[in-house]
Formats: sequence, structure tokens, C-alpha cells
Amino acid sequence: MEKNELLYEGKAKRIYLTEKPDVLWVEYKDDATAFNGEKKDKIAGKSRLNNLITSQIFEALKEAGINNHFIEKLSDTEQLVQKVTIVPIEVVVRNVTAGSLANRLGMEEGIQLEAPIIEFYYKDDALGDPLINEDHIRLLKIATPEQLHVIRGIALRVNEFLLNLFKEVNVRLVDFKLEFGVNHEGEILLADEISPDTCRLWDIHTNQKFDKDLFRRNLGSLTEGYEEILTRLGGSSCTK
Amino acid sequence: MEKNELLYEGKAKRIYLTEKPDVLWVEYKDDATAFNGEKKDKIAGKSRLNNLITSQIFEALKEAGINNHFIEKLSDTEQLVQKVTIVPIEVVVRNVTAGSLANRLGMEEGIQLEAPIIEFYYKDDALGDPLINEDHIRLLKIATPEQLHVIRGIALRVNEFLLNLFKEVNVRLVDFKLEFGVNHEGEILLADEISPDTCRLWDIHTNQKFDKDLFRRNLGSLTEGYEEILTRLGGSSCTK
Ligand SMILES: Nc1ncnc2c1ncn2[C@@H]1O[C@H](COP(=O)(O)OP(=O)(O)O)[C@@H](O)[C@H]1O
Ligand SMILES: Nc1ncnc2c1ncn2[C@@H]1O[C@H](COP(=O)(O)OP(=O)(O)O)[C@@H](O)[C@H]1O
Ligand SMILES: [Mg+2]
Ligand SMILES: [Mg+2]
Repeated sequence: MEKNELLYEGKAKRIYLTEKPDVLWVEYKDDATAFNGEKKDKIAGKSRLNNLITSQIFEALKEAGINNHFIEKLSDTEQLVQKVTIVPIEVVVRNVTAGSLANRLGMEEGIQLEAPIIEFYYKDDALGDPLINEDHIRLLKIATPEQLHVIRGIALRVNEFLLNLFKEVNVRLVDFKLEFGVNHEGEILLADEISPDTCRLWDIHTNQKFDKDLFRRNLGSLTEGYEEILTRLGGSSCTK
Repeated sequence: MEKNELLYEGKAKRIYLTEKPDVLWVEYKDDATAFNGEKKDKIAGKSRLNNLITSQIFEALKEAGINNHFIEKLSDTEQLVQKVTIVPIEVVVRNVTAGSLANRLGMEEGIQLEAPIIEFYYKDDALGDPLINEDHIRLLKIATPEQLHVIRGIALRVNEFLLNLFKEVNVRLVDFKLEFGVNHEGEILLADEISPDTCRLWDIHTNQKFDKDLFRRNLGSLTEGYEEILTRLGGSSCTK
């Protein structure tokens, strides 16, 4: 497979075309951003950690029958994925109160939810990724009610799977963000990444944070936290 | 009926107990507030206009079979209502883009929607009345899914009714906010007010505003706008 021209560059990844029209080459970056780009830094090793963790999770999801865009890992910082048209909705699933949910509803962080909560955010940096409801999605025409139903279903299955995966390694899955796309066959497919950049992951006993809140809130070394997740998931932490 | 002690005072009304446990005495105030209380003023005559307009609308809703808390108008600024336990959700129905919807989704104001949009806001001044979804409502336990279903249904019926009522007097119903409560029989009942304080009302031909945006955006005399609505609805504009 060859890496052709850059298709687009986001805050965390560069996406390149390949000679196959349905296959994209993803290169993870060492950039860390938070608060809609207001806080930024370069963190050596982040690209590798996110690429290895996300590759492992998407592989495991596939094995569990949850189809997704992942094709294969190419290197420590690169992977091949199926090209999709991204649905501009950030789908957030929550098991424990934290972050914007706690702020929005005036709740403390760390409260276990009786049932998972799903939120839809309009993926639009200029608007600050606002929370939206299903009527807004209908108005924006960014997903049909049927697609949204499928997305909700997959999100809940991913949650069940990840809750277990992380529980086995003593990690509490607090919340996470998913992105979905439509492939050339018109099917909704789980895409983007699942990494400590897009999840809140706490030690099950101490609530120590292993995720991007380390960076957002200056709580300690981001790479140490991400490395801990990679190690616990059994990923090689000495590939490089 | 006698007016007993003050039960509570809000930004726009004072609510008094009466000798009947299920009946409240509502006194409209001349206070105008916007942006969660940041902008305030006293506007002589506003209490009368809102009381007369809301009385007329709730009366008309009743005649149309949409049950609500309204019992009777007592004076230019007072009315009796059935006591309910207010569900702390502001239910917003929209027919045309404006205000926070336009801001949230990056749309212009004044675009006609293909179908009405319903939004739920958590009625909590300290939190700034944030937008919430049905999962948040389940978590907050402020309404059951069944109650929410009933609320949605009534909101859409009120919208159909008001769209017609205002269209007949050449007014465009852009959006409005409703509050619901639970009465002593456990029934969901439309409550609070429907007035130019809680609706966006534009002249159907010129889009001239007759609602609280006159105050929010300093567009002209609030009382002239509200008086125009009262007059168009056929309400006496010379009761006092
Ligand atoms: N399989 C895929 N096909 C096409 N685009 C994808 C795929 N997976 C992720 N993307 C998109 O790649 C872009 C770059 O990712 P990222 O750097 O995380 O961007 P962002 O700054 O939007 O978070 C994003 O717009 C993301 O939605
Ligand atoms: N029928 C009713 N029974 C009990 N409370 C009511 C009823 N109708 C309205 N209310 C409540 O009366 C309070 C005073 O109204 P208002 O001044 O508009 O308050 P706010 O500052 O919350 O907008 C509000 O909390 C409103 O929800
Ligand atoms: Mg991203
Ligand atoms: Mg009010």
C-alpha cells in the first residue's frame, strides 16, 4: 500500500489517500489540544500510544463482531482504515459523571450512573461542538432517524464491550466519544479512534486518571498515563 | 377567594396561597429580566399586558380542549390557577430559527423550519438553564419517559393551536417556551404563562418584533409591542 496525498489534517491525525479509493492511511500526531484548541502542546510519544491503543481496541471490537473502519496497523504511529464519510456528530457515552456532564447538570464528578447516558454533539469547531438533540439533527440533515438509531445501538454495544475490556485490567471506563461514518455501501461504520484522548479512564481502585484530563487539567504526565493503559491492555510498551 | 401568604416569587410573577389548597393566586410583576437576570428593568404596564394576554390564551386553549392550570382572571394583573408541582424543564417549541437555536447551529435567524423543533432546558437559574436531552432527564429524575411523552404531545398541540391563533391576526409564531406541572391527581398539566415574555412573535409581513427581544436587544418599546399583540388578539387595551 502506498501513502498518497494528504486528504486532511485534524488536531490529532493526518489522513492520506492511498492507491485504493476506499482505503485511507492514518498518521497519528504528537499534538495535544484541549478546550477547542485553546490549550495546545506537542507531547513526544503520544502519536505512538494513541495509534497502538486505538489499533488494539478496534481489532478487539472486530473480533467481538462490532464492525469498524480499522484495517491494519502499519507502524507504531500509522494505520490503514476504510474510508467513510464522517457523520459530523460526536457521540458521547457516559457511565460515570465527569467533565461537561457534571458541569451542565450541577453534579459532582465520579457518580456511577444507573444506566449509560448518550449525548450527541455537533462536530463543528467553529461552533464549539455544541450539544444537540435529535430534532436538531433532523434539521441539520446530518443523519437520518434510522442512522441515528443504528448509531445509538452500536454506541451501546461498544460501551458494553469496553466496560468489560477495561474492567478486566482494573480500569474504570468513565466516558468516551465515538465518531461514525457512512461507507461506500451506505452502511454506518464505527470510525475515528478510541484512545485515552477520547475516553476518560480511571484506576478502578484509586480513581487515578490515565487520560487526556492529565493534559487538560495539568494533573501529571500524559504519556505515563497513556503508557499505563497500553501496558494494562497487554500492548507492547517497548515496540520502539 | 382570598390571597394568603406568598408561596414564592419568581422573576416575572408572585405566587400566593389561597384558602383552597389546590388554588394559587398569581400576581404579574412589572419586572423585565433577560440573560439569566443579567439585564433587568422595571417596565410599567408589563404586568397587565402579560396577565391579559396569557389569560386570553389559556382560556382559548381550554376551549380548544387543551387542559391547563388557568382558572380565572381576577384583575388586570392577577389570575387564579390550579396549583401544580412544576416539572423543572423549560419546553421550547420552534417553528422558525432564532435566538439560541440560530447561535447553537450556526444558522441565520428567520428560516422557516420544515417541522417544529422541541428542546428541553433544565430550569435551573444557577446552571443557566442548560439544554438537556432525554437521557439527562432520566438521570435527573425530573420527569418519567411517560410524562415526557405526554409533555411532547401537549407541546405540539399547543403549537398547532397557537400557530393558527396568531396567523389569523398576522403574527408569525417563531418560538415559545412552556412549563408543565403535575397536579394533585398526578396528571401532567400545562402551567405558567404564554405571553410575549415567553414567545417570539413577529409581524407576518414585516417581521417586526412584538416580544421580549425588544427588551433583550434594545429594539424599541416593549409595552408598545406587547400592546400590539393584545390588540390583535382582540383583548381590550383600555381595561385600565
Ligand atoms: N475512516 C475514516 N474516514 C474518513 N475520515 C475519518 C475516518 N476516521 C476518522 N476520520 C476523520 O479524520 C479527521 C482527522 O482526525 P482528527 O485529527 O482526530 O480530527 P479532529 O481535529 O476533527 O478531531 C477527523 O475529521 C475525523 O473525523
Ligand atoms: N400552576 C402553577 N403552580 C405552581 N407553580 C407555578 C404554576 N405556574 C407557574 N408556576 C411557577 O411560578 C414561579 C414564578 O413564575 P416566574 O416569575 O415566571 O418564575 P421564573 O423566575 O422561574 O421564571 C415559577 O417557578 C413557575 O414555574
Ligand atoms: Mg479527533
Ligand atoms: Mg418565568
